[in-house]
Amino acid sequence: MNSRQLFEQVEAKGSYLCVGLDPDLEKIPKHILSLEDPVFEFNKQIIDATHPYCIAYKANIAFYEVLGPRGWTSLQKTLDYIPKDIFTIADAKRGDIGNTASRYAKTFFQSLNFDALTVAPYMGEDSVRPFLEYKGKWVILLAHTSNPGSADFQLLESKETGRKLYEEVMVRAMQWASEEELMFVVGATQGEKMASIRKVAPGYFFLVPGIGAQGGDLELVSKNGMNAQCGLLVNSARAIIYASGDHDFAAAAKKEACKVQQEMARYLDLYL
Amino acid sequence: MNSRQLFEQVEAKGSYLCVGLDPDLEKIPKHILSLEDPVFEFNKQIIDATHPYCIAYKANIAFYEVLGPRGWTSLQKTLDYIPKDIFTIADAKRGDIGNTASRYAKTFFQSLNFDALTVAPYMGEDSVRPFLEYKGKWVILLAHTSNPGSADFQLLESKETGRKLYEEVMVRAMQWASEEELMFVVGATQGEKMASIRKVAPGYFFLVPGIGAQGGDLELVSKNGMNAQCGLLVNSARAIIYASGDHDFAAAAKKEACKVQQEMARYLDLYL
Repeated sequence: MNSRQLFEQVEAKGSYLCVGLDPDLEKIPKHILSLEDPVFEFNKQIIDATHPYCIAYKANIAFYEVLGPRGWTSLQKTLDYIPKDIFTIADAKRGDIGNTASRYAKTFFQSLNFDALTVAPYMGEDSVRPFLEYKGKWVILLAHTSNPGSADFQLLESKETGRKLYEEVMVRAMQWASEEELMFVVGATQGEKMASIRKVAPGYFFLVPGIGAQGGDLELVSKNGMNAQCGLLVNSARAIIYASGDHDFAAAAKKEACKVQQEMARYLDLYL
Repeated sequence: MNSRQLFEQVEAKGSYLCVGLDPDLEKIPKHILSLEDPVFEFNKQIIDATHPYCIAYKANIAFYEVLGPRGWTSLQKTLDYIPKDIFTIADAKRGDIGNTASRYAKTFFQSLNFDALTVAPYMGEDSVRPFLEYKGKWVILLAHTSNPGSADFQLLESKETGRKLYEEVMVRAMQWASEEELMFVVGATQGEKMASIRKVAPGYFFLVPGIGAQGGDLELVSKNGMNAQCGLLVNSARAIIYASGDHDFAAAAKKEACKVQQEMARYLDLYL
């Protein structure tokens, strides 16, 4: 999926919502747990309920990996079930040298057929390049994340350039990859800073985690972060998929996703 | 396994070799491929051949993950097969926020029962802490890696402290975790710098990839990097496990591992 097609989805649905598929066996409703593949069944019902309101799904790979081999089977079935016009993100934050990165790229872009993968920048250009070799696929590089620890290293200011580490990451990565193959992770908890971060990479999409459970402010993010093509994919997981822990979980997820979509439609009118 | 036990292994075997278990279906000898679980069979024979000469095995998770669910089964069988007095490292370079990091920790420390996991520092303290909650287990944090891209961000110099990013990572992380729960990845291609890197963290173990295929110099690394407890785990994968691609692959791996061990025994005499 290219950026134009992504923006068409934004316009068609009045939404830039990404729903996080982070299935936690301790939070999945009890009546689902007795089914043969509870993780897939849970995701299936969440997808059925929320797909009219979102333009992307993001699978947090840790939640599948922890289940061992059957977790990977559930993940594959989930991917195959997601409607083809919806953008899919593997949130795995991989980052390693060339021949290892090539394997990760093959896993997520070829075997599982995700559209995009989150990647960690610490090891530099040759740890990112192998992912860029898959045409039509996207690298979503960590820039300024939403967690408290994001201040530990990401805000370190370079003596040479005066840029903070996360800005340095963005500036360098834009030399490696275009707006058609690279996005950045920018946490919603950086809402106040979002305007200055947007100035660093005006044309690139940002994946924005941290609204809902982590407390980011959707209006602030939208007002300060939107560009002419929207340029935002705002992720919400727990607030939607665990809106209810009972038999009505899918209906509750639908209601919550619809609420966020309506708020987004308003911001698209106001700020696009 | 604690650092004293690790050093006892170093002394008993005259070795600080870590053998990388990176099974590549394109490089595994043809006659193995027809077996039911070629990855495990390959690893089993490599382990049988090399365990007298090494004190650790490192599994590069990308090579298992790319095989889908069966890759995780092969990995689990491999872990179960490694003799209990040998240190085991999952090279997965994970790094994510708290509740996600907890899942990764559970996967590698509890389900698979590795002794150690490589972790990426970009997201800061709260992305490392969940791994430290597993007592007796080790975080091996990326500091200065062996690849060309390590220069992109790791050498960025902080305006505030004058330290390079990799030094900043080491200094901060030493405030989070002791020498009994934390090691650092320092590439063998940084041989010349190894003495100054050792000064930053005198008592901590370093996992050193990059000898063999990547061209690092074992003597330089040993001379400049050793501390009173050795403090080094030097990884070699391709040069050992693919020493031959034919029926004699295990014998060839044994010969190669033995050669490295003998060189290490000499450096232990000279530099410990």
